[in-house]
Amino acid sequence: MEKNDTLLYVQLAEQLINHIKDGVHPVGDRLPSVRALAKSEQVSIATVSAAYAILEEQGWAEARPKSGYFVKRAAVEPLSMPKKSRAKTSPRAVTVAELAMAVQRGAAASDGVVLSAAIPDLEFPIADIVKRTFTKLSRYPSSFGNGYDIPEGLLTLRQQIARRAVDAGLHISPDAIITTGGAQNAIAQALKALTQTGDIVAVESPCYFGLLQMIEGFGLKAIEIPTDPATGISVDALTLAMQRWPIKAILTIPAFSNPLGCIIPMEKKRLLIQLAQRYDVPIIEDDIYGDLQFEGRRSKALKSIDPDGRVLWCSSVSKTMDPHLRVGWIAPGRYYDEVLQQKFVSEISSPTLPQLVTAEVMKKGLYDRHLRHARATYHQRYIRLLELAREHFPESMRVSSAKGGLVAWFEMPRSVDATELYYMCREQDIHLAPGELFSVSGLYQNCFRLSFSNNWTPKREQAIAFIGSLLKKMV
Amino acid sequence: MEKNDTLLYVQLAEQLINHIKDGVHPVGDRLPSVRALAKSEQVSIATVSAAYAILEEQGWAEARPKSGYFVKRAAVEPLSMPKKSRAKTSPRAVTVAELAMAVQRGAAASDGVVLSAAIPDLEFPIADIVKRTFTKLSRYPSSFGNGYDIPEGLLTLRQQIARRAVDAGLHISPDAIITTGGAQNAIAQALKALTQTGDIVAVESPCYFGLLQMIEGFGLKAIEIPTDPATGISVDALTLAMQRWPIKAILTIPAFSNPLGCIIPMEKKRLLIQLAQRYDVPIIEDDIYGDLQFEGRRSKALKSIDPDGRVLWCSSVSKTMDPHLRVGWIAPGRYYDEVLQQKFVSEISSPTLPQLVTAEVMKKGLYDRHLRHARATYHQRYIRLLELAREHFPESMRVSSAKGGLVAWFEMPRSVDATELYYMCREQDIHLAPGELFSVSGLYQNCFRLSFSNNWTPKREQAIAFIGSLLKKMV
Ligand SMILES: Cc1ncc(COP(=O)(O)O)c(C=O)c1O
Ligand SMILES: Cc1ncc(COP(=O)(O)O)c(C=O)c1O
Repeated sequence: MEKNDTLLYVQLAEQLINHIKDGVHPVGDRLPSVRALAKSEQVSIATVSAAYAILEEQGWAEARPKSGYFVKRAAVEPLSMPKKSRAKTSPRAVTVAELAMAVQRGAAASDGVVLSAAIPDLEFPIADIVKRTFTKLSRYPSSFGNGYDIPEGLLTLRQQIARRAVDAGLHISPDAIITTGGAQNAIAQALKALTQTGDIVAVESPCYFGLLQMIEGFGLKAIEIPTDPATGISVDALTLAMQRWPIKAILTIPAFSNPLGCIIPMEKKRLLIQLAQRYDVPIIEDDIYGDLQFEGRRSKALKSIDPDGRVLWCSSVSKTMDPHLRVGWIAPGRYYDEVLQQKFVSEISSPTLPQLVTAEVMKKGLYDRHLRHARATYHQRYIRLLELAREHFPESMRVSSAKGGLVAWFEMPRSVDATELYYMCREQDIHLAPGELFSVSGLYQNCFRLSFSNNWTPKREQAIAFIGSLLKKMV
Repeated sequence: MEKNDTLLYVQLAEQLINHIKDGVHPVGDRLPSVRALAKSEQVSIATVSAAYAILEEQGWAEARPKSGYFVKRAAVEPLSMPKKSRAKTSPRAVTVAELAMAVQRGAAASDGVVLSAAIPDLEFPIADIVKRTFTKLSRYPSSFGNGYDIPEGLLTLRQQIARRAVDAGLHISPDAIITTGGAQNAIAQALKALTQTGDIVAVESPCYFGLLQMIEGFGLKAIEIPTDPATGISVDALTLAMQRWPIKAILTIPAFSNPLGCIIPMEKKRLLIQLAQRYDVPIIEDDIYGDLQFEGRRSKALKSIDPDGRVLWCSSVSKTMDPHLRVGWIAPGRYYDEVLQQKFVSEISSPTLPQLVTAEVMKKGLYDRHLRHARATYHQRYIRLLELAREHFPESMRVSSAKGGLVAWFEMPRSVDATELYYMCREQDIHLAPGELFSVSGLYQNCFRLSFSNNWTPKREQAIAFIGSLLKKMV
C-alpha cells in the first residue's frame, strides 16, 4: 500500500506528535482547537477528532472539558515515526512482502537463534505425542475413508474442538465448525467469504504481519486502528473509522495480540460487539493464542458474547501442538455457508491424517495436560526475557506487558532502525521480526518483536546480549 | 451465474440448433447469411460468426466457400439444451453450488455405489504403501523441523516432482515448483494471483464443476468455450471469445478433460499457446490426469511447449495415490512470485508429513510402478463400463471416448433430466454426477458423468443396470 493510502487522520496525528516532540507544543500547552485545525489543514472536523483520539490513546494529549486538548507527557513512547533512508550493506528485501517472506524463510531454514517466529517449543512432550499418534493412526484404516473428506472437516475433530471451546465460554455444535489449514487459512477463508477486491478491513496497529500480508495479497485495504498496549484496539478510533469508511470487516486478536501480547477486557469486548452491530459488520476473531494465557482462568472469547452470529471465531493448534500439522478451524456464525463454500472451492477438503491425529491428542486429554505445563513455562520464559532485556538493552527501551502467547514487543528510541538491526543480526544467524512488518504505512521502524517460547539456553541468552550490543550503538 | 450472463453467441447457437432439430432448417438447407441474421437478431456480425463456429464445431453446420453455412447431420448429439422445469419429489438443492456440495458429500458419506466422484481405487497397493510410509516417516525426526515449512514446500518433494515432470516433457528446476493442498488448491492460488473480483476466465464446456464453483466462489465469471469431445477446446471459438471479452486467464484440462476424457492434440496445443501469446493471457493447465493415460507414451504437457512462462502447470497425487493426502503442486512460470505470495498469505505453508510421504513414495519408484498397473487397469474398467452401458442404457445414448483418467461422460436424449436421475439414484445410495454441474448456463441437463475407477463388482454392475432402467423410463 502506498503512503497516500494511509488514513488522513493517522497522518495528521503523526504530524501533531512530531510537533510535540520537536517542542513546537510544550507539555501543558493548549493544542489548536478542532475547528481551527480543520480549517488550517483543510480537512474535516471528523478527521481532526480522530487524530486527537489517537493522541489521547497514546498519551500525548488529554481532553479537558470545554477547553480543548492539552499536551501531556506521553505514557508510552509514540509508535509512529517516519521511515528513514539508510545505507544498504547487503542484499535487502525491497517490499514489505518480500521482507515478510524473508523473515519466514529465515526462521524455517536457520540452525541459529530464531527469535523472529511465533513458534511453540517443539521440545515439549506434546511434539513427541503428536508423532507417536501419527505412527499409531497411520495404520488405522478409518483414517482413509473411501475418498475425499467432507468439506467441513473430520467430525471427530470438530467434536473435540466444540468440547474444548467451552473453556473459552463457547457453546457451539460441531456442526457450526469448519476445519482449516491453520488459523491463517481460517482467516483467509473468512476474508474471501466477506470481501471483494478493493474492500477495507480494520485491523489493530501494530498487527501481525501475516494478516497484513493477507489483506494486501487479496487486493484489500487495511485500516490500522490505534491499539492500546494494555487493553487492545481503541473502540473510539474504530468508531471514527467506521463513520468515515465503508469497512467490510473488523479483524482482531483479542487474546494476546500478536505482537503486543495484551488482552481486550470484557467490557471493551462488549463495546466492540455493539459497534459491529451498529454498523452491521462482521468481526473476525483470531483466537490462536487464547489457550496460552499465563495465569488464571482462560478468558472468554469475543465469540462467547456474540449476540447474532457476527463473530467468526478462528484458531488452530499451531501454537499449542505443532505448526507442521497445519490444523486449524473456524466457527463462522451466520457466515457459515459462505465460508464453507470458500473452503470447498479453494481446496475441496483438508488432509485427513493431521486432523485425525489432532482429534486423538485432544480426546485423550493430552492437549489439556500440555497446556497447563506450557502456560506456566512460557510465563517463566517471558519473565526471563524481560530480565535479559533489562540487562542488555538500552535503558530507554520499552516493552509490552504480555499476558499470554509467545511474543513480546519492544520499542526503542527513534534513532533505532529495527530493519537494519534485523539484517545485522541475520548475519550472525540470529533472527528477530522487525517492526516495519507490523504496519502498512511505515510505522514501527523503531520496534521489533521477539519470541520467548524456547528455553533460554546460553546461546539464546547470548543472542539477546548481542542484540543489546547493537542497540546500544544505535541509540 | 444468471442466464443473462450467458454469452450471446452461445444463446444464438442454441437457438439455431433447436431450429435445426425442430426441422425449421432441414439437412442440406442453407442457413441465413451472417449479415442477415445479425440484422434480424439485432446482434453484431462477430456474435453470429461465433454462433456459427459453434454449429460447425458440433457438426450441425458446415461452411461452404462463398456460399455460407449449410445444415449438416450432427456428428455428435448436441450438448446444449434448455433447462426444463420438473416436479420435485424430495428436498433438493436450490443452486448449482448446493448441488455440487451435495454430490461431494454424497460421495464422502456413502457406503453404497459411488460413481459420482473422480476418486482413484483405494484398494490398489499404493494406498497401503502410502499408509506404511506414513508409519515409517512419522517417527523420523526430520519430518518435524523447527517450525513452519517454507512457503514453496518441502524441497525433497519438489525434487521428485521435477524429476518425474520429465515424463511430461518438462525440464524444470525444483525451484520453479510450489507445493499446494491438491490440484484444486494449486488452481485456486493461480486464479487468486491472476485475477480480481469480476474478471473473466475462459473454460472448457463441459467443465469439471469444482473449477466452475471456484470461479464463481472467487467472484469471477466463466466463459464456456465449446469443446470437441475428441480434440478438446475449440481454438476458433476461444479466438472469437478473446476478441470480444477481456479474458484474464484460460483454464484448461488438456489431458483427459474432466468430464470428456479427451486429449488436446499437440498441433492444437501449439495453436492454443499462440493464441495466448497473441492476447498476452496466461494459461492454467490442470494436468491432474496426465499420468493416467490408458495407452502409449505419456503425452507432453502444454507446459512443455510454453515459450515464455505463461503456462501455470498444476497437478496432484489425488488421482494417483490418495486424495486424503491433499498434496499437489504448481509450476507457475513467470507468475511464480505472485503465486508464492498467494500461498503464503492463504496458509503460510503446507502440512509437512503428507509432503514427505509423497516424496518418499515417488523416490522409491513405487509411484511409477503403480502407474503402469493403474493405467492398464483403468483402461479395462473403462471398456467394461462401455459394455455395461451398451447393455443397459437406452440405445440413443452417447458416450465420450476417454483416453485416460477416471471418468466418462454420457449424453442422453433431450427428454432425460439427469438431475432428476441423480436424485432418484441417490435414494438407492447410488451416486452419479448430473450434467447440470458442468455448466454455468444450464447446459447438459441431459448428461451425466460416471467414474469407472473401481472394480466392477456385481453391486456396481447392478447399479449401472439400475441407472439404465430409470433412463429407459425417461427417454
Ligand atoms: C496472530 C496469528 N494469527 C495467525 C497465525 C497463523 O497461524 P497458523 O499457523 O495456525 O496458520 C499466527 C502465526 O504466527 C499468528 O500469530
Ligand atoms: C480436473 C480436476 N481438477 C482438479 C481436481 C481436484 O483435485 P485435487 O484433489 O488434487 O485437489 C479434480 C478432482 O476431481 C479434477 O477432476
